[in-house]
Amino acid sequence: MAAFSISIDGFGAGPRQDIHNPLGVRGTELHNWFFATQVCRRMTGQSDGTRGVDNDMAARSFENVGAWILGRNMFGPVRGPWPDDSWKGWWGQEPPYHTPVFVLTHHARVPLAMKGGTTFHFVTDGPESALRQAREAARGRDVRIGGGVGTIRQYLAAGAIDEMHLAMSPVLLGEGEHLFAGINLHELGFLVERTVAGEKAVHVVIEQK
Amino acid sequence: MAAFSISIDGFGAGPRQDIHNPLGVRGTELHNWFFATQVCRRMTGQSDGTRGVDNDMAARSFENVGAWILGRNMFGPVRGPWPDDSWKGWWGQEPPYHTPVFVLTHHARVPLAMKGGTTFHFVTDGPESALRQAREAARGRDVRIGGGVGTIRQYLAAGAIDEMHLAMSPVLLGEGEHLFAGINLHELGFLVERTVAGEKAVHVVIEQK
Repeated sequence: MAAFSISIDGFGAGPRQDIHNPLGVRGTELHNWFFATQVCRRMTGQSDGTRGVDNDMAARSFENVGAWILGRNMFGPVRGPWPDDSWKGWWGQEPPYHTPVFVLTHHARVPLAMKGGTTFHFVTDGPESALRQAREAARGRDVRIGGGVGTIRQYLAAGAIDEMHLAMSPVLLGEGEHLFAGINLHELGFLVERTVAGEKAVHVVIEQK
Repeated sequence: MAAFSISIDGFGAGPRQDIHNPLGVRGTELHNWFFATQVCRRMTGQSDGTRGVDNDMAARSFENVGAWILGRNMFGPVRGPWPDDSWKGWWGQEPPYHTPVFVLTHHARVPLAMKGGTTFHFVTDGPESALRQAREAARGRDVRIGGGVGTIRQYLAAGAIDEMHLAMSPVLLGEGEHLFAGINLHELGFLVERTVAGEKAVHVVIEQK
């Protein structure tokens, strides 16, 4: 789990998510540090962007990833059964994953191959199955849990996450989805491995020891 | 409210406070950044200590303070009525306040004058009264709410705090007293004014706008 943005008060997404606010109200403010980086700008075909600490941490978060797992809301705003196959994710023709991506959903759908090596697999038999499939697909490289908050909390509580990179943004959301409420990170064996001050976020790497 | 230490997961004190663990189990880990500073070392008569960013932020937190407010547990481990006047605080003959200090308690006690200008006043008619008295005593300088967590939460919820300096320590407590749970800092009008990376903590200053 890497480069997951949270507010100073611990929220990983804002309240009242909908198609206009996929990250919840004010949720995008959590990601301002990332939007400014070269890593992010390149994803949308731009050649500018910052190349400081935030960019290094963003780049690091994509290194050695062999498969991703996403909650369904990270893939799209569609709720309930898929009306058709027209929704292909938030990212256009060439998503930034370039690996197999396992999407947790209750509704089956055939795998969706996109440009650049990303294939979305829709997993209907639960997070354990998704993790097993992702590990196999990753062939020894890391499996990254991309979010959202509910998905990360589920894997955290199951003890399935061994490292997290939190990007703490200088923002107070006040409400929304809290990443750690009710989860005892100490009991799960996590320690702070390091803290790195970026230009627009503080990066905290925690590891299960 | 200044230099209040919290963990990465948002706790301002550990669980199970008692006389051996006045800050709760592992609560002292929150303050390691402060213990190392010259400001802290001088309080105990030592001449060593670090003089970097953490020390500057610690020094700043004592500047222009005209009066303090403390919850009773910050003053001592005694619960219920005062058995006698023998407990004089955690700090020895010369406490680090050097101003009037208003201690919230349900049990009356005569004011206690210590060396170096600190006088403890025991306020039995509630936090509003304590704030009024502290403002008067501060004569135009700042009133600092020293803690603990419950006291800060009470004044926060009442809208009585206009600036907070949070020192985020690279520690995961997992449980204890959460500083902000259920408090909507955005609704209260707080914004992050600045973030400063210290040697052993990240300092976040938030202000009510």
